[in-house]
Amino acid sequence: MITVALIGSGNVATHLYNAFSTATDVKVVQWYSRKLNTISCHNTKVYKTDNIDALMQVDVYIIAVKDSAIASISSQLPFTNRLVVHTSGSVGLPDMNKKNHRAVFYPLQTFTKTTAVNFAEIPLCIEIERKADFSILKRLAKALGSPVYKINSQQRSTLHLAAVFVNNFTNQLYRIAHEIAEANAVDFDILKPLIKETAKKIETSSPFMAQTGPAKRKDTKTIKKHLDALINKEHKAIYQLITQSIQNTHGKKL
Amino acid sequence: MITVALIGSGNVATHLYNAFSTATDVKVVQWYSRKLNTISCHNTKVYKTDNIDALMQVDVYIIAVKDSAIASISSQLPFTNRLVVHTSGSVGLPDMNKKNHRAVFYPLQTFTKTTAVNFAEIPLCIEIERKADFSILKRLAKALGSPVYKINSQQRSTLHLAAVFVNNFTNQLYRIAHEIAEANAVDFDILKPLIKETAKKIETSSPFMAQTGPAKRKDTKTIKKHLDALINKEHKAIYQLITQSIQNTHGKKL
Repeated sequence: MITVALIGSGNVATHLYNAFSTATDVKVVQWYSRKLNTISCHNTKVYKTDNIDALMQVDVYIIAVKDSAIASISSQLPFTNRLVVHTSGSVGLPDMNKKNHRAVFYPLQTFTKTTAVNFAEIPLCIEIERKADFSILKRLAKALGSPVYKINSQQRSTLHLAAVFVNNFTNQLYRIAHEIAEANAVDFDILKPLIKETAKKIETSSPFMAQTGPAKRKDTKTIKKHLDALINKEHKAIYQLITQSIQNTHGKKL
Repeated sequence: MITVALIGSGNVATHLYNAFSTATDVKVVQWYSRKLNTISCHNTKVYKTDNIDALMQVDVYIIAVKDSAIASISSQLPFTNRLVVHTSGSVGLPDMNKKNHRAVFYPLQTFTKTTAVNFAEIPLCIEIERKADFSILKRLAKALGSPVYKINSQQRSTLHLAAVFVNNFTNQLYRIAHEIAEANAVDFDILKPLIKETAKKIETSSPFMAQTGPAKRKDTKTIKKHLDALINKEHKAIYQLITQSIQNTHGKKL
């Protein structure tokens, strides 16, 4: 049985708490939040506290707070030489206080507090400082049912950057499509099956193989029509830049 | 029973043929392709032909060929005053020869020949010239189990443009993420669950509400780190432009 203390009250902490609650190999002994009322709604037997000095001895301390608070929280911990992990994609391992054994336990997914998550579908990326700490963190990830990837700092930075492209930037393209649709009295819902299928396609094809459309086939007539239809200068610039990017990708290699 | 002649041998024609084959209210009487061998592999009782003058009388002629061939095929049809539709998102209705009654039967989805499609999840956008033609095309769509949307030319152009953003451009962001991952010895597969969830999220949230990440929260430290890590100038330009777009969207309205 792995004992855990959770630090934080946000989306990641909450989803980890819920997932650990049903895991057999893990016990969340304690849950710390700076503001007790943010976690008191969870009607469970776990010992909740807003006093960091009250943290008990456990196998793993999981800091799941906003990026900018990780360094400070890690310094405030009232103990040394224990295993402390954070869950962020972008905060460096050395940003945590070195008085403890540091590691990163990074679930690569976008979390919303109200949406249920299935950890079996969330890659858990583990970065360690001490070789000896990998096996317990791997067991922790396995208890969640998650696929485990051992990564280094450079790989985690890369994943975080790539995640911005496939998540934040992709979502902004959805947003732009939403704006274009609304401005022309078109129901955005009509586009949702296409959005779903576009994501589904790359489960079996590479993005390179999956590409279609006017940019790839160098259909200048359609591209011109689209550019003429785009009134918003920013949308037009994005259209031009990504069209160019598609043509560079497919011009070179086809 | 609606009788249909299919014209073309590409992805859309093939998927329509397969879907109509199991529909109860539709009979594909004839299948035309300029090159007979492209459709002869379909071992069925439908009458296949490469002679356009052999087209028999049916209720609806469906032209599912590449955009640039639609006008020419529609002119070659050896009859007048019958209902002829094309399936393209971008070709104008008036581009078809006016000797027949023209309409558009546009399934808004990305098709791959080898991937099975479920028409129940594909919006069928219908644009008509003659009011009287809507009901039969609606029946045709309903026979496929598809949701039906009656649209005009302007709305179809808008849908096609918005589709480029959510499909081609989104896929290019996946491609860029793939390049970034590969260049740093990271397995692109780790990103696939995030890609899937990003698409899934907008089934229940607007893209505006679903946005997260460094651009939205104006995390300049992370943005700078990402820009420094991007070696490819084009990737950097896309990062900057979409980050700016997210900040314009969320700066203005929050």
